[in-house]
Amino acid sequence: MINFEALFRISYGLYIVSSGNKDRGNGFISNTVFQVSAEPIKFAAVCNKNNYTADFIKESGVFAVSVLHKNTSPEIFGRFGFKSGKDLDKLEGMKVIFGETGVPIVLNDCIAYIECRVVQTTDVGTHLIFIGELVQSEIINDSKEPITYLYYRQVKKGVAPKNAPTYIDKSKLESGKEGTSTKKYKCGACGYIYDESTEMIKFTDLPDDWVCPVCGSEKSEFFEIDN
Amino acid sequence: MINFEALFRISYGLYIVSSGNKDRGNGFISNTVFQVSAEPIKFAAVCNKNNYTADFIKESGVFAVSVLHKNTSPEIFGRFGFKSGKDLDKLEGMKVIFGETGVPIVLNDCIAYIECRVVQTTDVGTHLIFIGELVQSEIINDSKEPITYLYYRQVKKGVAPKNAPTYIDKSKLESGKEGTSTKKYKCGACGYIYDESTEMIKFTDLPDDWVCPVCGSEKSEFFEIDN
Repeated sequence: MINFEALFRISYGLYIVSSGNKDRGNGFISNTVFQVSAEPIKFAAVCNKNNYTADFIKESGVFAVSVLHKNTSPEIFGRFGFKSGKDLDKLEGMKVIFGETGVPIVLNDCIAYIECRVVQTTDVGTHLIFIGELVQSEIINDSKEPITYLYYRQVKKGVAPKNAPTYIDKSKLESGKEGTSTKKYKCGACGYIYDESTEMIKFTDLPDDWVCPVCGSEKSEFFEIDN
Repeated sequence: MINFEALFRISYGLYIVSSGNKDRGNGFISNTVFQVSAEPIKFAAVCNKNNYTADFIKESGVFAVSVLHKNTSPEIFGRFGFKSGKDLDKLEGMKVIFGETGVPIVLNDCIAYIECRVVQTTDVGTHLIFIGELVQSEIINDSKEPITYLYYRQVKKGVAPKNAPTYIDKSKLESGKEGTSTKKYKCGACGYIYDESTEMIKFTDLPDDWVCPVCGSEKSEFFEIDN
């Protein structure tokens, strides 16, 4: 038997993984960045094949990882997590520096970053694991703690975008919840949908200071929609 | 430039990764387990090639991951993190169940587990990334929080074993700390060495209730040794 809740006991951080060059780049919110070897130091970054940033990593052979802190603004999650670089230049207006390889590194709400040069790529089906050798790493702000995926889910009430490796299909969760009725609520500002069937917390039980994880609008901006 | 401290801003949990069958098995403490695909659900477990458990995973083609909680006993870290299954049967005397594939799953200090069947293996140099499809997952104890690597380092004052992908060689840290003098302290009970040069916290600055991360002995059991 698969208990989907058990999968959420695996710990992750939250990062902006970026790639490209000085002329054009892109980035996305990732929870799957891990060190995989110590000598030399190599990191793995997992990326959905449909993710626009995957194309940049394949083309440039480099990626950067910006570690986000606990008070990262909803706008950053909205811009890098729920929008596509095919529709807008995600780096425009952001605080961006360029690494030793020329890769863009996003410094907004970032406490540390690492820069890697891809040395191998593993295809795991829907996702690619890019394995990169460390080029440089730096601390940007030592006064703030890194945000974890658990904190984002429990305190920020955030959800995983559909391209995330940890995304869970609504129908799978529903199979274990027969007889319960779930509702959907839409953000009047950005259109984001809070779907109780994938959240396991009823919308009405969310705290009053909960805000839209995409655009930061208040709970009162949401309205119920048909399932 | 590489700032090694920046690498510790990447978030990890702590797990016992086990493998084998009903007759013989082994397990080790790992911080690098992560979901890499959603459809089907696949997990990656990173394992040093010299690790005895790597042989079991290669032979049996299965592994289990036991998620440890915040109050995991030092004996568990000592047994599974700092000793080798070549010298003792690590599973002897432990609370072990066998999964659908026959893999042993350790339930001591475990809040959830997942069981995977290996579908591919990636060689990243010193380490192997075993990628397994999820067979089953279960919650064991929903009242305790998963331990993170950061918590283990900061609160438990734990260190990474030499085979961990996040192990950092003392000489690398020392290069950034010229002029400071560091000392070593040895546990009188188990021989574990607290090496200030890789810890960045002086032994004398550790709280009085700090205990040996391997065997749980009190701070007063430690004595200074020559560098």
